[in-house]
Amino acid sequence: MNIIPQACNAEVAARIERIAGELRARGIDAILLSSFANLYYVSGRVYCGYAYVTAVGNVTYFVKRPVGLEGENVAYIRKPEQIADFMADAPKVQTVALELGLASYNAIERLKNVFVGADIVDGTPVINKVRSVKSEFEINKLKECGVHHVTAYHNIPKIYRKGMTDIELQIEIERVLRNEGCLGQFRIAGDTMELFMGNLLCGVNAEMPSPYDFAMGGAGLDDSLPVGCNGSLIKQGNAVMVDMCGNFNGYMTDMTRVYRVGSISPLAQRAHQLSIDIHHRLASMAVPGVEAKALYEEAMKMVKEAGLEEYFMGLKQKAGFIGHGVGIEVNEMPVIAPRSRDILEAGNVIALEPKFVIPSVGAVGIENTYVVRDNGLECLTNAPEEIAELY
Amino acid sequence: MNIIPQACNAEVAARIERIAGELRARGIDAILLSSFANLYYVSGRVYCGYAYVTAVGNVTYFVKRPVGLEGENVAYIRKPEQIADFMADAPKVQTVALELGLASYNAIERLKNVFVGADIVDGTPVINKVRSVKSEFEINKLKECGVHHVTAYHNIPKIYRKGMTDIELQIEIERVLRNEGCLGQFRIAGDTMELFMGNLLCGVNAEMPSPYDFAMGGAGLDDSLPVGCNGSLIKQGNAVMVDMCGNFNGYMTDMTRVYRVGSISPLAQRAHQLSIDIHHRLASMAVPGVEAKALYEEAMKMVKEAGLEEYFMGLKQKAGFIGHGVGIEVNEMPVIAPRSRDILEAGNVIALEPKFVIPSVGAVGIENTYVVRDNGLECLTNAPEEIAELY
Repeated sequence: MNIIPQACNAEVAARIERIAGELRARGIDAILLSSFANLYYVSGRVYCGYAYVTAVGNVTYFVKRPVGLEGENVAYIRKPEQIADFMADAPKVQTVALELGLASYNAIERLKNVFVGADIVDGTPVINKVRSVKSEFEINKLKECGVHHVTAYHNIPKIYRKGMTDIELQIEIERVLRNEGCLGQFRIAGDTMELFMGNLLCGVNAEMPSPYDFAMGGAGLDDSLPVGCNGSLIKQGNAVMVDMCGNFNGYMTDMTRVYRVGSISPLAQRAHQLSIDIHHRLASMAVPGVEAKALYEEAMKMVKEAGLEEYFMGLKQKAGFIGHGVGIEVNEMPVIAPRSRDILEAGNVIALEPKFVIPSVGAVGIENTYVVRDNGLECLTNAPEEIAELY
Repeated sequence: MNIIPQACNAEVAARIERIAGELRARGIDAILLSSFANLYYVSGRVYCGYAYVTAVGNVTYFVKRPVGLEGENVAYIRKPEQIADFMADAPKVQTVALELGLASYNAIERLKNVFVGADIVDGTPVINKVRSVKSEFEINKLKECGVHHVTAYHNIPKIYRKGMTDIELQIEIERVLRNEGCLGQFRIAGDTMELFMGNLLCGVNAEMPSPYDFAMGGAGLDDSLPVGCNGSLIKQGNAVMVDMCGNFNGYMTDMTRVYRVGSISPLAQRAHQLSIDIHHRLASMAVPGVEAKALYEEAMKMVKEAGLEEYFMGLKQKAGFIGHGVGIEVNEMPVIAPRSRDILEAGNVIALEPKFVIPSVGAVGIENTYVVRDNGLECLTNAPEEIAELY
C-alpha cells in the first residue's frame, strides 16, 4: 500500500511544493513534522513517524507504524535517532524547523540530536501558515462535510421529544451525525481544549464558564470534562444551541444552529438576528487583504450599536475571538480576534461564530464555515439561520 | 465555587502528600503540573492553568480559566510568566520538575524563565508513579465505571440486527454507553494514539495494522483515522471484538468482549479460551512485588505452549504489550511488556488484554480491568467471558 493514497498524489505534491516555498521565504532548509495532523497533511494518511520536507521540495516519510506502507521515499525506523543515518548522505542543513509548539520537550530534545550543529527553529508557524490556505481539493472535502453537517442538523427537530434533557438530545444528535458518516474525532491542535464530539447548550447552563478556549462554555456532566450539557431538562423558553462535530473525511466544518422550545424572549430573538446580520456584513467584507482583526472590530461595532455588548461571547467569561480557521483541526489560522495579526488570503477557511448568552434563556447566534474568495465569503454550511422550533 | 469539589477534599490532600513524598524521595523541591489529566488529579477538577506542589506538601493552583474558582491557595494568572511574581516570596527552589514528557517544547521554555537558576528535571515520571497507585477513592470510581461498562455491554446482543455493518453496530453501542452515562472522552497521555470512543473489530478487518500504539488495529473508515471499523458487513463466522470507552466519571475501565455470528472456527474458540486462561493465571500471580514483565512472560509461555504465537497480539503487526495501567488515562503505569521495569504495587489498576487475531475470523480474547491486591487481582469488569452469540 503506497503511503500516499492514489487520490492524493497530485495534491500531496502541490502541498510539498508550498511548504518548500514557505521554507525558502523564511530561510529555513528543512522541516521535520511529527504530529498526526501534519503527517496527514503531507501524505494524505495518518501514520506514526515523521516527514522531512526540504526547501528544494523533497520529502522523506519516516514511518514507525503501521507496517506495510510503500513508496520510494519511505523509510522505516524504530526510533527518531535513526533519522540521523539517513541524514548522513544528505546535504548538510543549517537551519531545521521542528514542531516546537506541538511536540513535547522530551521529543524535541531527542530530535535535536538528529540535527547536531544545525540551528533549530519553530516550524509550527510555517506549517500552520501553509495549512491556512486551502486548495480546491481541500475545499471540496470541506464542502462534502458541509453537506453532511447540514443534513444531520436538518433532523434535529425530528428527533426531539418533549421532556428530553440536554444530554439525551445530544446523544441522539451524535447518533444521527455518526450515521451520516461523521468520524467523531474532533481534532484540536495543542493542549488548551478537549471536547467529546461537540457542544449542546440549553438554558442557564450556557452561562457557565468552561476552562477551555472555546467560544461557549457549559458546566458539563462531570468535573473531569467541564463543558457542554449538564443534564438539565429542556424547558419552555429555552434556547438550545447545537455546535457539533463536522468531521466527515479528515476535514471538518464548524456549524452552530439554535432551537427553541415555545417562544423565547425578544432580547434573545434580537441577539440571534444580530448574529445573522454580523455574518452577512462580514461575508461581503472579508476579502483577501483584509485584516482578520477588522472583522472582529466590525462585529464589535455592530454589537455595541445594538447595545448587546454585555451578552456577546459569554456573560461571566467572554471568549476573545469570534472566528477561527478550520480544516483538519478546529483551531487553525487565521484567528478572528482583536489582536490577531493575520491577513485574510483567498483560500482561507474560517468559521465565524458571533454568539450571545442571554440570561435564563441560553445561547443564541449561528456559526457557519466559509471560504475566503476574491469577492467575499462562500458559505459551506448553507442552512436556514433562524431559530427553529422544537415541539 | 471552591477549586476542590467538596467530595474530593480529603482525597486531594492525600494526593498532594503522596506527590510531596515522591518529590522528597527523588530530591526534587517542587513540581509544576500543567496537563488537564494531572490538574484533575491534584484538584478534582479540570481547569486551565498550573498546579505547583512542593516537597513540603504545599500546593498553589494557578488558574487561567474558568473564572470563579475560589480557595486560599488559588491565584489567577493570564500567562505563565506571572507565576514568577508569586515565587518571589517563596523559598528559593534548587530543583523543579516540569512535565517535559507532555508539555510542548515552547511551553517548557516559557516555564523555565519562571524558575531561573533552578535545575529543571522531568516531572512526568514523578506524577505517573504517584498516579499509578490508586486510592480506595479512585478504586471506587473505577468500580462504578466497571458496573456501567458491564451494564452497557450486556445490551449488545439486544441491539444487534442481522445485516448490520461493523460501524452500524458500533454507533448503537456508543449510544447505549452514552445513555448509561459514558462521558465519551477517551483520555490518552502523549501523542502516539487517537481514537473516537473505542474500537469494534469484525472479521478480516482485525488483521489490518494501525499507526497507533493500541493492542489491536483495524483499517478505520478513513485514512485520517486509520483504526477500528471499516464499514464491513458482519457475517456468519465472524468474531466481533468490542473494546469501547469506559469513562463514566473521569476515570475509565477498559473492557473487551467478543461476539460471534453463527459458529466461529475451533481455532478462534481455542484462542479465546486461552485468553481467558491467561487472565485467570495472571490474576492469581499478580501480587505486589511481582515484576510486570513476569506477567508478560507467563502469558507468552502459555501462548507458546498452545502453539498460538503467530496469532497473538496481531498478525502482520504485533503489539508489544499485553496490559497497561488505566485510570484517568488509558495508558498509565505499570506497563505489562517484556522490557517493562515496573514492579506491581498494591493499588495499581491494570487492564490485561491478551488477544489473538485469527485469519478471516477476526479478533478474539477478553480484556478486564483489575486492582492489584495483596492476594492477587480484583476484577472491576465482571461479566461473562465466553463468546456471546449475536442473532
